[in-house]
Order: sequence, then C-alpha cells, then structure tokens
Amino acid sequence: MTDAPVGAIVRYVVNQGQPLDRVFQALADPTRRSMVERLVRGPAPVRELAQPFAMSLPAVMQHLQVLEACGLVRTEKVGRVRTCHIEPAGLRMAEDWLGDQRTGWERRLDRLGDHLTDHSEPEEGRPA
Amino acid sequence: MTDAPVGAIVRYVVNQGQPLDRVFQALADPTRRSMVERLVRGPAPVRELAQPFAMSLPAVMQHLQVLEACGLVRTEKVGRVRTCHIEPAGLRMAEDWLGDQRTGWERRLDRLGDHLTDHSEPEEGRPA
Repeated sequence: MTDAPVGAIVRYVVNQGQPLDRVFQALADPTRRSMVERLVRGPAPVRELAQPFAMSLPAVMQHLQVLEACGLVRTEKVGRVRTCHIEPAGLRMAEDWLGDQRTGWERRLDRLGDHLTDHSEPEEGRPA
Repeated sequence: MTDAPVGAIVRYVVNQGQPLDRVFQALADPTRRSMVERLVRGPAPVRELAQPFAMSLPAVMQHLQVLEACGLVRTEKVGRVRTCHIEPAGLRMAEDWLGDQRTGWERRLDRLGDHLTDHSEPEEGRPA
C-alpha cells in the first residue's frame, strides 16, 4: 500500500483557494489544532509533536505539511532533527476576519438598539 | 444529471467531527464566508443572499445547509420566503479558540522577554 491517496488529499487541500480558505481548512482538523495548541507554547521537534497522537509518523508529517503550506507552521532541519515553530500571522488573519464579523454584528445590534429607543412609546395604562 | 455527488459532499462535511471542525470547515469556503459577511449586517431572504453569486439556487442552498448544520446560520420560512439569520455563537467559538492561541503565544513571548532580561549582561567593551 502506498501513501498516494493521502498525498493526493493533502495536495488538494494545500493548493486550493485563498489564504483564508487554506487557514480555515487547516484548522478544521482536531489533530492539526492540537499541534497548533502545542506549538504556541514553544517550538517542538517533529517526534515530540507526534508523540500524543495515535498515528504513524508519515500521517503526522502530512498534517504538518498542511499547516506549513498555509503558513501556520514553519519547520527547520538541523542535522537529523526537524523542529516546528508556530507562525502567528496566519492565526491573526483568521482571528481578524472573525473579529470583523463580530464588529459587523455588534454594529447592527447598536443600530437596532438606537432604532428601538427612538421609536419607543410609553406603554398604555402606565404613567409616562 | 442528479445533484447526488454534491449532496454526498455536503453530508460528509456536515456530519464529521467536533463543532469546531465543522465551523472551520464551513468558513474554509469563500462563498460561505461572503454569506456570513452579508448576514452579520442583517437577515436576508435566500434569493437576495444568492444574488451576488454566479451559481444556481440549489448550489447556494447546499452552502446554506453547511452553514446551518454547523450552527452559523439559522433559516426560517414564512409563507414562500425563507429568511437567513446569522447565529453569532459559532463565530464566537472559533474566535475564542484563536484568541486562546494568541494568548498562549503572547505569554510565551513574555516569558522569553523576562528570561532575556534576567540573563542580560553588560556587553564587553562597552561601559556598564
């Protein structure tokens, strides 16, 4: 059995769409999110990063490739050890997009609140 | 030609994994992000939501199903008009996860800064 089908999926995930597509796609997997959660606490060699997961080292490497291709993780090899580092810019891009949506939503609530205040009338049967 | 293959993809996307998997998966598509961007500004009927996209109404409905299944969008039908509303809790969940990663990263930088301050020595050849 070869790893061709998994490789094909990785290439598909890696090559499609806008940067934000690829960042959200990368974060849509619990293993990759766990890797990000580990790496924000500091760099780690691949073998240490792989250790908590019940999967083969090649499978871990495929997940790392997805994280690397979308710019969330950078790896560097010194001698025989490949070390993984978080790249916070990708996380920031995703957080900024979500923050923009929250701002849009909050502005709408503010406008709705203003509208209700402007149009509120004293209720019937109660002193104004 | 039937819409079965697209339906199968939607069911696959909709049914797999944790809530955060499904929210990030839903946001990994530019059409679905555009729909969210529109809906944070206020509710919209499906036909108005579909209007900017060069795709069939069934294709738009498939995207809406993905957004609805992961809880980012709620739709309600009154008479013949189906209206879409944003559900901000799903966006907040994704933003919170990203915020936690940023906090983890910033704490690490703080610790690194403290460590460098504690271990800094006056440089040779320069007055202390």
